[in-house]
Amino acid sequence: MDLRGVFHLQGWLLIFLGGAMLLPLPFSFYYQAGDWAALSLSAAITSVTGLVMTRRTRLTRDVRVREGFAIVTFGWLMASMFGALPFMLSGATASYTDAFFETISGFTTTGATIFTDIEALPRGVLFWRSLTHWLGGMGIILLSLAILPFLGVGGMQLYKAEVPGPIADKLTPRVTETAKILWAVYILLSAAETGLLMMGGLDLFDALCQTFGTMATGGFSTKNASIAAFPSPFVQWVLIVFMTLAGANFSLHYRVVQRGWRVYREDREFLVYIAILAGSSVLIYLLTTMPTGQHSELAVRNAVFQVVSIQTTTGFITVDYELWPFAGQMLLLLLMFVGGSGGSTGGGMKVLRIYLLGKFVLAELNRLLHPHAIIPVRVRQHTIPREVVTNVLGFSVLYIVIFALGTLAIAMMGYDMPTSFGAVAATLGNVGPGLGDVGAVDNYGAFSAAGKWLLAFFMLLGRLELYTVLILFMPAYWRR
Amino acid sequence: MDLRGVFHLQGWLLIFLGGAMLLPLPFSFYYQAGDWAALSLSAAITSVTGLVMTRRTRLTRDVRVREGFAIVTFGWLMASMFGALPFMLSGATASYTDAFFETISGFTTTGATIFTDIEALPRGVLFWRSLTHWLGGMGIILLSLAILPFLGVGGMQLYKAEVPGPIADKLTPRVTETAKILWAVYILLSAAETGLLMMGGLDLFDALCQTFGTMATGGFSTKNASIAAFPSPFVQWVLIVFMTLAGANFSLHYRVVQRGWRVYREDREFLVYIAILAGSSVLIYLLTTMPTGQHSELAVRNAVFQVVSIQTTTGFITVDYELWPFAGQMLLLLLMFVGGSGGSTGGGMKVLRIYLLGKFVLAELNRLLHPHAIIPVRVRQHTIPREVVTNVLGFSVLYIVIFALGTLAIAMMGYDMPTSFGAVAATLGNVGPGLGDVGAVDNYGAFSAAGKWLLAFFMLLGRLELYTVLILFMPAYWRR
Repeated sequence: MDLRGVFHLQGWLLIFLGGAMLLPLPFSFYYQAGDWAALSLSAAITSVTGLVMTRRTRLTRDVRVREGFAIVTFGWLMASMFGALPFMLSGATASYTDAFFETISGFTTTGATIFTDIEALPRGVLFWRSLTHWLGGMGIILLSLAILPFLGVGGMQLYKAEVPGPIADKLTPRVTETAKILWAVYILLSAAETGLLMMGGLDLFDALCQTFGTMATGGFSTKNASIAAFPSPFVQWVLIVFMTLAGANFSLHYRVVQRGWRVYREDREFLVYIAILAGSSVLIYLLTTMPTGQHSELAVRNAVFQVVSIQTTTGFITVDYELWPFAGQMLLLLLMFVGGSGGSTGGGMKVLRIYLLGKFVLAELNRLLHPHAIIPVRVRQHTIPREVVTNVLGFSVLYIVIFALGTLAIAMMGYDMPTSFGAVAATLGNVGPGLGDVGAVDNYGAFSAAGKWLLAFFMLLGRLELYTVLILFMPAYWRR
Repeated sequence: MDLRGVFHLQGWLLIFLGGAMLLPLPFSFYYQAGDWAALSLSAAITSVTGLVMTRRTRLTRDVRVREGFAIVTFGWLMASMFGALPFMLSGATASYTDAFFETISGFTTTGATIFTDIEALPRGVLFWRSLTHWLGGMGIILLSLAILPFLGVGGMQLYKAEVPGPIADKLTPRVTETAKILWAVYILLSAAETGLLMMGGLDLFDALCQTFGTMATGGFSTKNASIAAFPSPFVQWVLIVFMTLAGANFSLHYRVVQRGWRVYREDREFLVYIAILAGSSVLIYLLTTMPTGQHSELAVRNAVFQVVSIQTTTGFITVDYELWPFAGQMLLLLLMFVGGSGGSTGGGMKVLRIYLLGKFVLAELNRLLHPHAIIPVRVRQHTIPREVVTNVLGFSVLYIVIFALGTLAIAMMGYDMPTSFGAVAATLGNVGPGLGDVGAVDNYGAFSAAGKWLLAFFMLLGRLELYTVLILFMPAYWRR
C-alpha cells in the first residue's frame, strides 16, 4: 500500500476544494450575508492543509488498483470533512456531526438535510451547500466513467461497448478526453436549466442553487418548503425535465447531439428508465386522485414530479407524499431502489441492473424449459458476459442485505418502521427524504448523533457502489 | 405437453388424499364432534374424483422435465382445492376462499389461519387441519430431495456431494430409498415429540396436532392462544428443540444416527443455522429485557421460542412480539427471509443460500484485491460451481423482487406498512403470522378475498422455490 501516493492526491483535492470555497463569495458580498470570513477562513485552512499534504508526500506515477479504492473513498471523506468547515465556522450548525452530515450528503448528491430553517442560513453558506452537490456530481461522472471500471467495480461499463468507456489497466488519455466531453454536457445542461429557471422568475441565486440540486440529482433546495416554494407550473415542469435528463446516462445526451434523437430510442436502459417513470406516475396519479375524484394539471404534476424526483434520487419535494395512501409511499420506496441510469449522477441500484435482473430471470426460466441448451442473457444482439451477470446479481443482493441490516441497526436506535426503512433506503440510494420521521416535510436534524454517522456511512457506501468502501474493511487490503 | 400423464398422477394424489381424510375419524367419534359425515363425504368426493381421473388418463412411463413443473404445482393446488372440502362441508368456514386459504396454508406448511376461534372447530376438522401440515411436510421432503433437483430448480443439492442426493436425469430407485429413509426420520422424530409432549401433560389429540405443526414447521395450533395456551416450560422447550430439528436438513439427522454427533459439527450450514438462531435470541433477549431489567427463565424462553419459531418458519406463538420494541420485530422480519436449512421442512430463502451469499461477497472482495487471480466460492475444501453461485444469487434477487412487488400489491388493497410487509414475508416464507393486522395475536380472517388469493399464491410460490410455479406463466411452456 503506497499511502504517500494516496495522500498526495488527497492534497491536490483539498487545494481544489479550498479554491471552490471562494466561489460563494460574490453572493456573500452581494447579499451582505456576513459569512465571507467563515468561507475565506475555511478556504484557507483547506488549501493550506492540501498544500502541506502535497509537499510532504510524493506523486506515484502508476496508480495501482489497490490504491484506487483508498483514493476514492478517502477522497469523498476528506472533501466532506473539510467541506464541513463553512457550516461550522459560520455557526450554521451546532455540532461537527451535523456539519459533516450535511456536507457528505451534499458531495454524495444525497440531499438529506439536518436544517429545519434553511432560509435562515447566510447566503454564502447556502450557496456552498448547493455547490457541494454540483461538485459531487462532477466527481460521480468521473467515477462511473473511469475510476470504477478501472477498479473492477460496477461492471456496468463492461458491456456497453458503444460507450467510449475504458476497460484498460491504466487511465488513458482517452478517458481524460471523455471526461471533458461529459463535463461539458453537464455544464451546458446546467447553464440551460439556470437560464430557463430565471425565465420562470427565479433570481440568479435561486436558479443556480436549484440547478445544482437538479443536475447532481442531489435535492438541496434554498427554501424550507423545497420546490413547493416555487409554485409556477413552468418552473416545476422545467425541473421535471432536467431531473429526468440528469438521471439518464450522460453519454447518451452527448451522442444525441452527434447522431440525433434516435440515440434515446435505441438505448434499452433509457427506454426502461422512461417506462418505469411513466408507469409509476400513472399509478401514483390514480392512487392520489381516485379517493377524491379531482383531476387537475396540479395532480398530474405532483404525481410526475415526485416520481421523477424520487426515482432519479434527487429528492426535491412539491407535495407531502406521506399524506398519500400507503401504496403510493410504498411505490416511492421501491423507486428509491431502482434509482437512476448507469452513467448518470443518480443513485440507487441503477436501472441497467434492474433491467439485467429481469433479463436474467427470463433466461433462467428458459433454461429450465430447455435444460440442455445454453441460454445466455442478451440485450439486443449482445450477449452479456457471465461475469457481468454474476456481478450485477451480487451487487443487487449485497445492496439489499446492507439495506436490511442497516434498517435493523437504525431500528435498534429506537426508530419506528417507516423511519428506519425510509432513512436507510434514502441514504443508501442517495435520495434524501425518506418516510416517517424523515419524510417529505421533515429533516434529519433530530436524528441521534450515532444515527447520523451511520446514515452518512450509508450515503458513502451507496455512492461508491458498495465494494469500493467495503474493501477497506478487509484486513487483507492493508497487508503487504 | 403430456397433460394426460400429468392428470393421471393428480388422480393418484387425490385417491391418497381421500384416504387421509379418514384418519381424523377416530378423533371425531371419540370427541363426538359430529363432523364424521363431512369428513367421510369429503373423502368420498376426493377419492372418486381421483379414481375417475386415473381411469380417464394414462400413466406416462417417463416423466419429462417439462411435465414435472405442472405435476408439482398442480399437485399442491389440487390437494388444497380438495383438502378444503372438510372445512366447507362441516360449515367451519363461510366461504370457499377461506377454506382454500386455510388448506393451502396447511399443505405449504405456512400456518397462516383465517380462524379467530380455533377451539370452536369440531375436533375431526381440527385434526385434519393439522394433518395437512404433516402431509405437506412429507411432500416437501420428497420435493427438495428428488423433484426439484430433477427439475433443475433450487441448485441446493448440486454441491452437497456427501448427501445421497440425486442429480440424475430420471428418478432412480436410489431416490425412493432415500425418501423412505428420510420419511422414517420424519416419522420417528414425530413419534418422539408426541411422546414427550404427552409426558408434558398434553393429551394424545393436542400432542399429535402440535407435533404435526412442529415437524412440518407449519404452526397451526389447536388453541386460540397458540402455544401460550401450554405454559409448561417443559412443553415449550420440547417444542423449541423439535422446531430446531425440523428446520435443519433431515439427512443430517439420519447421518447422526450412522456416524454420531460430529455430523452436526462438521456441517457448515447447520453451524450457521445455529449461530443465527443463537445470536438472534441473545439480541431479542437484550432488547426485550433492557427496558424493564427483569431477567427470568421466562424472558429467555420467550426470546428463544419466538426466534426459533419464526426463523424455522413454524410460526407458533408464546408471546405477542408486536409489543416488543420495533427492532425486535424487525429482526423477526429478517429471520423470515433467512428461513430453515436446505432439505428441511422450513421455508424462507434457506440458510444455505444466505451462507453462500456471504461467501460470494467475500470472494468478490478478494477478486477486486487480486484482479488477475481466479477466486472461486469455496465451502470447506469444495469449490462451488459457478452455475450454483449464479443460481443462488438469482433466486435471492427474485425472492426479494417478488416480496417487494407483492408488498406493493397488498398495499394497493389499502393495507398499512407493517401489515403489507408482514403478510407477504410471512406467506412467501411459509411462516404464518406476520406484523400489523396479521401479527402474533391476529389472523388472516379479515383480509379481503382478493388479498387472500394473492397471499395463497405467495405461499405456493415460496414453497415450490418460485421457478416451479413461475414457469407455468410462460407462454413458451405451453407451446408444442
